[in-house]
Amino acid sequence: VKPIVKRAASATSDLSENLSKPALEIDALVIGGGPVGLFQVFELGLMGMTAHLVDVLPHAGGQCIELYPDKPIYGIPAVIETTGRRLIETLLTQIKPFKPQFHLNQQVNTIERQEDGRFFVQTSLNTTFIVKTVFVAAGLGAFQAKKIPLSGLIPYTDTQLFYHLNPNANFAGDDVVILGGEDAALRTAISLANNVNNPPKSVTLMHRRDIFTEELAKQNPDIVAVLHLVATGKLQLRISQLSDIVEKHHQLTSLKITDVDGKAEILPVDTLLVYLGISPKLGPISDWGLELERHQIKVNPATCETSEPGIFAIGDINAYPGKRKLIHCGFHECTMAVFAAAAIVFPDTPIHLQYTTTSTLLHQRLGVKHS
Amino acid sequence: VKPIVKRAASATSDLSENLSKPALEIDALVIGGGPVGLFQVFELGLMGMTAHLVDVLPHAGGQCIELYPDKPIYGIPAVIETTGRRLIETLLTQIKPFKPQFHLNQQVNTIERQEDGRFFVQTSLNTTFIVKTVFVAAGLGAFQAKKIPLSGLIPYTDTQLFYHLNPNANFAGDDVVILGGEDAALRTAISLANNVNNPPKSVTLMHRRDIFTEELAKQNPDIVAVLHLVATGKLQLRISQLSDIVEKHHQLTSLKITDVDGKAEILPVDTLLVYLGISPKLGPISDWGLELERHQIKVNPATCETSEPGIFAIGDINAYPGKRKLIHCGFHECTMAVFAAAAIVFPDTPIHLQYTTTSTLLHQRLGVKHS
Repeated sequence: VKPIVKRAASATSDLSENLSKPALEIDALVIGGGPVGLFQVFELGLMGMTAHLVDVLPHAGGQCIELYPDKPIYGIPAVIETTGRRLIETLLTQIKPFKPQFHLNQQVNTIERQEDGRFFVQTSLNTTFIVKTVFVAAGLGAFQAKKIPLSGLIPYTDTQLFYHLNPNANFAGDDVVILGGEDAALRTAISLANNVNNPPKSVTLMHRRDIFTEELAKQNPDIVAVLHLVATGKLQLRISQLSDIVEKHHQLTSLKITDVDGKAEILPVDTLLVYLGISPKLGPISDWGLELERHQIKVNPATCETSEPGIFAIGDINAYPGKRKLIHCGFHECTMAVFAAAAIVFPDTPIHLQYTTTSTLLHQRLGVKHS
Repeated sequence: VKPIVKRAASATSDLSENLSKPALEIDALVIGGGPVGLFQVFELGLMGMTAHLVDVLPHAGGQCIELYPDKPIYGIPAVIETTGRRLIETLLTQIKPFKPQFHLNQQVNTIERQEDGRFFVQTSLNTTFIVKTVFVAAGLGAFQAKKIPLSGLIPYTDTQLFYHLNPNANFAGDDVVILGGEDAALRTAISLANNVNNPPKSVTLMHRRDIFTEELAKQNPDIVAVLHLVATGKLQLRISQLSDIVEKHHQLTSLKITDVDGKAEILPVDTLLVYLGISPKLGPISDWGLELERHQIKVNPATCETSEPGIFAIGDINAYPGKRKLIHCGFHECTMAVFAAAAIVFPDTPIHLQYTTTSTLLHQRLGVKHS
């Protein structure tokens, strides 16, 4: 697997740094930061294990954030109404006492069993781990951004062209063009247009359809924010399509765009941020030697252990008789997995079920005080 | 099974009425109104089935209300902190759209398969059902009040002596004595002492230990409320033990009580309300012919079906490999059970998993509107 050499400005750690770093020796690695991966961190924390978590996206949340951040969810037990975004925020707060370490913007490429029984794990940013237990909470697979179908742009990927970048990236002094009409595109445009500390030279939001109508604004406050920024001259808006690019000395300098009436325009660009949707791909998981069943990882429902002892699969990615792809079923699976994992990590300690209502030990781990 | 003839004033329906009523023909009966029984009602509702629910207690909540109503719970996924009481309130709100029918203060005594494959079910209050599917969510069994060890009192049970009565019962004009120091005793004393519409003649709270100290009051606002009612003359407090009773014409007229210094007192009484704790007993469940395993009901984890097709067991009462007695595991089990139940109730309809984020049908069933 070819490691990614050019990286988005938002990536959290430096590749050369990772290459020289020794592997992290840890008890538990969770792959996937969706709701089930996050709750696995909680269950590991209650069990006395600190978790590290890897996700390909620049943030936690998985499908909840990528597919339905603002849609209502009514089916979580004891949560009458939430949204993808609020559910993730709540889970991040719930796991805070356990201080999980996130390794974002990277995908696990390699899992190999070592002679001592532990696993060597390497990510696309060359972060390496030696771990006792692995929890695959990869949902439908690693989310990958839909690429822009203009081959001339490929050489600029990760230098001037970025896919689904974290909205907090720094492009001070640049002519920035943001392509796309989805939530993440709007939020990035708003964030950059409002950036007073490191202001870009210009920020342009471009989408092929006019979604900035009064009707749609009623349902989406981000549209109102965009319209306000356009009205106050902080943001340019184009309802156009990208038709070609202009280059000079191996630099991308401008975009040729065409509006709905066929009128062309040349738009200067230093940085092009693209949000054309994101879709999950199983990716390297299928190469780890785990027994699969129609693109799902087969597990023992009593333990959520895969065909490889010490590797567990939880949430939408697993398969067992009766499996339903529901978030709260994934939560239960975290519990099944953590007891089996504890038997591996603490082989000499009998593991008893404890309750957060009564256990002093769990209160200590949660950092709450009770008399 | 001998039906209960004398009943607490709080019972919701009249026995003679029930005897003449025809059996209710329904799709789904849930036995047990703890958190898992309540969530089963939710899952049934999403599936298009209205549930009836039977519980031996005068209210929903099971262990959450009887064992830890005000203790913090940190382990419910996506619920950072709650208590037994708040969890139940939330679940009752969540299932409201499905208008479940509660049959309280009664225990299911009989479940018998009929020739047509459905079940005949009869409760201790002679409510009868003909049901297609039964969900046993009986937790540790039916909660039963600890009895007062004074045989002379037995004849007055359910006429002048009541165990663990709902605090909203009406005892206008009576000398009421409340025995016990637990939560439910205090709440009943507070409720009766504050009852201005149907005021008792007198209300006395009696407990053998002095729990009404400044120290304990800090942790329990009910103790403060009791002390305030005593100070304002609305409630009498006795730190004493019951030593004997005084009867006249087959009526209980007074209690002989003794305080910690051995000083005796005669306390007039029309109604004696006893709260000496409540503990679960498996009860008639063991006679229903279901395969058990160490007092738990064995189920297939893919369906939560018991050895008897159409009868499901969920929550603390069931057993399967890897079983953990945790509330959120019970929630998952409700989902496993409802899909298997739907195949029985709707044999000709293919059952697809639908999501509350996107399904118009589920939005209709939940009574929420989305564009």
